[in-house]
Amino acid sequence: MLFYDSPNPAPNPRRVRIFAAEKGIDLPSQEVSIPKREQKAADFVDKNSRGQTPILELDDGTVIAESVAIMRYLEALTPEPPLFGTSPLEIAEIEMWNRRVELILMLPIGAVWVHTHPFTAALPGRNTEWGEANRPRVEEAMRFFDTSLDGREFLAGKAFTAADILLVTTLDFAQFVGLEMPDDCANLRAWHNRVSARPSASA
Amino acid sequence: MLFYDSPNPAPNPRRVRIFAAEKGIDLPSQEVSIPKREQKAADFVDKNSRGQTPILELDDGTVIAESVAIMRYLEALTPEPPLFGTSPLEIAEIEMWNRRVELILMLPIGAVWVHTHPFTAALPGRNTEWGEANRPRVEEAMRFFDTSLDGREFLAGKAFTAADILLVTTLDFAQFVGLEMPDDCANLRAWHNRVSARPSASA
Repeated sequence: MLFYDSPNPAPNPRRVRIFAAEKGIDLPSQEVSIPKREQKAADFVDKNSRGQTPILELDDGTVIAESVAIMRYLEALTPEPPLFGTSPLEIAEIEMWNRRVELILMLPIGAVWVHTHPFTAALPGRNTEWGEANRPRVEEAMRFFDTSLDGREFLAGKAFTAADILLVTTLDFAQFVGLEMPDDCANLRAWHNRVSARPSASA
Repeated sequence: MLFYDSPNPAPNPRRVRIFAAEKGIDLPSQEVSIPKREQKAADFVDKNSRGQTPILELDDGTVIAESVAIMRYLEALTPEPPLFGTSPLEIAEIEMWNRRVELILMLPIGAVWVHTHPFTAALPGRNTEWGEANRPRVEEAMRFFDTSLDGREFLAGKAFTAADILLVTTLDFAQFVGLEMPDDCANLRAWHNRVSARPSASA
């Protein structure tokens, strides 16, 4: 299989790299440059018509798009250590936190990125008012995760899971966009330090 | 366990009702009225601080929020018939399609709903320009799913899965918002008729 990867600060490919590192999986990869718009080139769009990285191409040519779908594929192939849970409640809670990271935090960060950041100024359809309206939502979301992490080692409980991978890659992308964690988010900051100290975080 | 449900047109609780019907699970439920804003009442917010339905409350008081997380919980308790796949590739492809329904189709429908619909006019933070900009994205997304369904019985392949549940509830919500399927989306329309004919669709 071949992993079509894009380097930092792209958050979604990094999720898969961290996931693979936690599993000890060595993923053969090929770089797709987002600044060079290689994800919109014809040969890549033939593989994923949405023109987005990452994708995983299997040996028979089947393409799996979407970072979390690739992570679930790797989990099914290499179940240990489990990162999507094993008991019904673990499975549900990790999915709940994954969705909360995406819907509550990643979406407003994406809106600030697409609609206000200098690097995206040439993209069509910019709505600066909408982008600015999302800044306070990012802060509110960070405070929600800060509160949720009170007394917890990891986002979905006592074990490091996919939910932690989604949250750390999202927060690091927020920082790249210029959206800093509020100073008083002590739980979130401590959690971020804990997760960032893992060897996988450098992936 | 107790399922906190909201009636149609709310798309997310309906996902869980269809899922349970496909599994033959009888979910004890309690109604939370969105028009009456009961999801923002103190006793509900105590259970889910995001103030959103649906949630599933377990007998020990544990709350699972997020429709897809509840669906995964039910899948783990009652594996047959499998709706999230069993082989690594099935699991990955269903997750890929779930995410595409959410990110490509549900998000722009939600933007049109929140920012342009008369029923949501009293909500703060409305940005009509942003809402209107999402109408063509909904159409583009419907055409993407129409193309993707060419030659396929169900969204993720030959079997009915959670991905079909996400797509049908999303399309029916779009219709409620006034976003109709383009006339020439023949694959999508045939698929919609097929899925809507299942007994679970009336859930």
